Amino acid sequence: MFTELFRHIEEKTALTEADKRGIPNFFVPKRLRKKQFLLQEGEYCRSLAFVARGLLKSYTLDGGGQEHISLFAWEGWWVSDFKSFLFDEKAILSIDALEQSEVLLIDRPNYERLLVEVPAMERYFRILYQNSLVTKDRRLIVSNTYSAREKYVQLITTYPQIAQRVPQHLLASFLGLTPETVSRIKKDIREEA
Amino acid sequence: MFTELFRHIEEKTALTEADKRGIPNFFVPKRLRKKQFLLQEGEYCRSLAFVARGLLKSYTLDGGGQEHISLFAWEGWWVSDFKSFLFDEKAILSIDALEQSEVLLIDRPNYERLLVEVPAMERYFRILYQNSLVTKDRRLIVSNTYSAREKYVQLITTYPQIAQRVPQHLLASFLGLTPETVSRIKKDIREEA
Repeated sequence: MFTELFRHIEEKTALTEADKRGIPNFFVPKRLRKKQFLLQEGEYCRSLAFVARGLLKSYTLDGGGQEHISLFAWEGWWVSDFKSFLFDEKAILSIDALEQSEVLLIDRPNYERLLVEVPAMERYFRILYQNSLVTKDRRLIVSNTYSAREKYVQLITTYPQIAQRVPQHLLASFLGLTPETVSRIKKDIREEA
Repeated sequence: MFTELFRHIEEKTALTEADKRGIPNFFVPKRLRKKQFLLQEGEYCRSLAFVARGLLKSYTLDGGGQEHISLFAWEGWWVSDFKSFLFDEKAILSIDALEQSEVLLIDRPNYERLLVEVPAMERYFRILYQNSLVTKDRRLIVSNTYSAREKYVQLITTYPQIAQRVPQHLLASFLGLTPETVSRIKKDIREEA
């Protein structure tokens, strides 16, 4: 289960053989059935989860019970309620599995120890967070500036596999659009092709 | 000018006296008049800017010439078009000064050298980006889930000084609301008090 994690780390920074022997000791693996929760709103998020296999989603519920997707996380992604994890607050995100999944969990004490004991991991997380900020900046800009169609096209161009793996009504939720708007955009694009 | 930067770093991690002698060599200070640009859309963002004094804003322009605020950056904040800086792409953000300001600029080669030569800075940026992700996560959730009033109250509660330093029409732009909506919310809150 650590092959995917090592691959992801080594895309960003070098690991020694000693690093690779040590890193698994900081994690606990967990399997999730489809629809099983990893975290529910109001709980404390005690771990960061690295997705070794499968697909999860994190989301909030608004006052009307409507789901708003925060993130889709497949192989190579991390998912958590990061604020709850770091600041010991109640989670406002829920996380569940869209497909049968395998995740690697690291709790807060192990995370802090890992960063100190394995300097390559300090570098890995700096680069991971740096790239993640770029993605989130762009998502905020897209959400504030782009038209519905531009949002849809940008998403499926950046993540081609998303349209295959994620149901259309969840894609719409992620983009802040109605399912009807997404259907109309797809129809327009087909007719222009 | 480095007092503010050292203060900000030492909130997150320890610096040695040697670190403090070395760090200034990686930066170039720059003064900005009010309304002066640090970056314009379409240019390449060659530096990260740390705000030692003053207030800047970063923003995009939509097809209709409407400004959408991405960030307000005052003392202790970093501002850039991060994607342009990291991936050598044209900037989609513009950055200008809302007040007379002093910034410390670090270019890409110096940034990469600093991270390798001063390990405390690798740790500092990891923690900075980690906290920034928490803020941006929350902003995405707020933007997708909260009502106009909840957005306004959350902003002025989190950053009390923002209402004093930033004109109301820019606050509205930051929140994705019209200036009229923000005026109405402020009136409602006053009348309930």
